[in-house]
Amino acid sequence: MAEFNIKILGCGSALPTVRHMATSQIVNLRDKLYMIDCGEGTQVQMRRMRIKFNKLNHIFISHLHGDHCFGLPGLISTLGMLGRTGDLFIHAPKNMEEYLQPVLRLFNKGLPFCVRLNQVDTSKHALIMEDRSMEVYSIPLNHRIPSCGFLFAEKQKEAHLLRDMIDFYQIPVKFLRQIKQGADYTTPDGEVISNKRLTRPAEPAKRYAYCSDTAYFPAIIPAISGVDLLYHEATFLEADKARAKETYHSTASQAAEIARQAKVGKLVIGHFSARYEDDNSLKKEAAPIFADTILAKEGMVLPV
Amino acid sequence: MAEFNIKILGCGSALPTVRHMATSQIVNLRDKLYMIDCGEGTQVQMRRMRIKFNKLNHIFISHLHGDHCFGLPGLISTLGMLGRTGDLFIHAPKNMEEYLQPVLRLFNKGLPFCVRLNQVDTSKHALIMEDRSMEVYSIPLNHRIPSCGFLFAEKQKEAHLLRDMIDFYQIPVKFLRQIKQGADYTTPDGEVISNKRLTRPAEPAKRYAYCSDTAYFPAIIPAISGVDLLYHEATFLEADKARAKETYHSTASQAAEIARQAKVGKLVIGHFSARYEDDNSLKKEAAPIFADTILAKEGMVLPV
Repeated sequence: MAEFNIKILGCGSALPTVRHMATSQIVNLRDKLYMIDCGEGTQVQMRRMRIKFNKLNHIFISHLHGDHCFGLPGLISTLGMLGRTGDLFIHAPKNMEEYLQPVLRLFNKGLPFCVRLNQVDTSKHALIMEDRSMEVYSIPLNHRIPSCGFLFAEKQKEAHLLRDMIDFYQIPVKFLRQIKQGADYTTPDGEVISNKRLTRPAEPAKRYAYCSDTAYFPAIIPAISGVDLLYHEATFLEADKARAKETYHSTASQAAEIARQAKVGKLVIGHFSARYEDDNSLKKEAAPIFADTILAKEGMVLPV
Repeated sequence: MAEFNIKILGCGSALPTVRHMATSQIVNLRDKLYMIDCGEGTQVQMRRMRIKFNKLNHIFISHLHGDHCFGLPGLISTLGMLGRTGDLFIHAPKNMEEYLQPVLRLFNKGLPFCVRLNQVDTSKHALIMEDRSMEVYSIPLNHRIPSCGFLFAEKQKEAHLLRDMIDFYQIPVKFLRQIKQGADYTTPDGEVISNKRLTRPAEPAKRYAYCSDTAYFPAIIPAISGVDLLYHEATFLEADKARAKETYHSTASQAAEIARQAKVGKLVIGHFSARYEDDNSLKKEAAPIFADTILAKEGMVLPV
C-alpha cells in the first residue's frame, strides 16, 4: 500500500445505522498515524482494521458535534490501559477542554500520559501542526457551529543519492546530508560536481484535504486547489437540497462541484445521511460533475 | 419470545476487541424497555437488534467506568434527533451529573426532552424504581469504585378471569377488577362465590439479577437468592485469579459459585477479558460448579 494513505474508519452522519459508523479517519504517512475526527465506535474500528494504537500521536477534531468526537473518551481510556506514556495531542476548536476535562477527571485518574489540547481557530486557514514529514493546516468551513477541515501536506522529501556517483567521487559521509538537500559537491581538487549528477529527485510531495461538515462553500477552493485527494462531505442528494441548506450540509453535486473547481486529483465523498438505503445514488449524482469520485466505505484504504 | 427477556447488546470488558462490544443490556418486559449500562457503541447495537428507541424510558448505570457508560452521550443525542419528548430517567451512582452536565450543555442545546438523574446509593440494597409492572432494586457490589448491580422484579400480575363463570353469574363489570385481585363475589341472592371458582392464577412473577462489575462477593446472595436468571460477570479464568482479585473482578468459577449458592434458575456470564481468544474456556470452568451456565453473546435474547 502507498506510503501516504487514508483509512476510513467511519463515514456515516449523526444518526446511527448498521451500514455506517460515525466519522473517523486515519491519515497514514509511512506508519506515522494522524486521526481526523473520532466518532463513537472509533476504537473498535481501529481494532477491526488492525491499526496500531501506539502509532497515533495527533488527533484532529473538525467540530464539536457528537458524531465527530464521542469516541474520544473511550479511545483515551484505552490508550491509558495499553500503557501509553507519550503525549497525545488533540487539535480541536474551543470547548474541547470543557468537554474533555470532566471526562479526564472522572474516568482517567492516573492516566500514564498527557493529553495536550491545541485550540484551533476555525476561522483561519493556518498551519496548526508540523513535524518532520507533515504539515497540517486548518480550512475554515461553513457549518452550524465553528468547524474546520484539515489539509495534510507532506513535506518535500530529500533527493535520493546516486550511490555509484557518491562512491566514484569518494564523497565523505559528512557532505551527504547537504547533497540530499540540493548542494553541489566540490572535490579536494576544486572540481565542482553539480547536484544533478549526484542525486535523483524525490517523489513529489502529496496533499490530502478533509472537508466535513460544511454547507457548499466555494471559499475553501484556494486552500484545497490541486490536492491529490479530497474528502468532502455529501450528506444529501440534490432532491434534499433544502434540507442540506437548512442543516449546513452539502449535496453530492455540490461536493463534486467543489472538486471540479479545485481541480483535485480524486474526490471521496462521505458523511452519508441515514435516509439513503443505497449510497450509490450519491455517487451517480456526483460522477457527471467530477468523474473521479469514490464512495467512502468503512474499511477502505485510499492512496493519496 | 418470552414476555420478559434480556437482550445482550455488549458483554466485553474495558479493552476493545472485534469479538465483543462494551457492556449494555436491554431488559424487556412486554415491550417496555429498561437499559442496563450503556458502553460505547450501544446505540448501533440497538439498531442492529432492531430495538425501538422510543420504548426506552429508564437507563440503569452500574458504575462510572467508561465501558459501562461512554455510550450515553451518543444515545441521548440520537433520542433528541428522533424527536423524543418524554423524560428519560438515568439511575446511576453519584458523579453521573458531573459527567453528563457538560455533555448536555455543549452538545444538546435545545434537547426536546428532559434527562432526569436519580442518584443511586450503591451501598444499599433498596428499591430505586417502580412502575406498574416492575420493581428495580440496587444490589451493592464490590468493585474498585462505587458500583451496584440491579434486581428486576416483575410485579405479581392479576389473576385471569374465567369468562364462562363471569357470564354464568352475570357479574357486573364494576366487580371484575376486585375479582382479578382476589376478591370473592356475592350474588344479589347473597350466595358467596369463592375467587378460586372465578379465576385462574396468573403466571408467577419472575426476577432477573445483573451483577457486574464485582469481585467475588457472597454478600450479594440474599438479594439474588432464587432469581430466575442471573447475569454475573466472569472477566477472568481461575488461572488469572490474582489479576481478578487485584482488579476487583470475578473468575468464571466464582460466578458459578455465587449462582450455586444463590440457587438461581440459570446463570449467564459475561464481561469477558480481551485476553481470551475463546470464551468457551470460561464456560468450561463454570459448568461443573453450576450446570445451567450460558455464555453471553452480542445479539442474544434470553427469556427470564
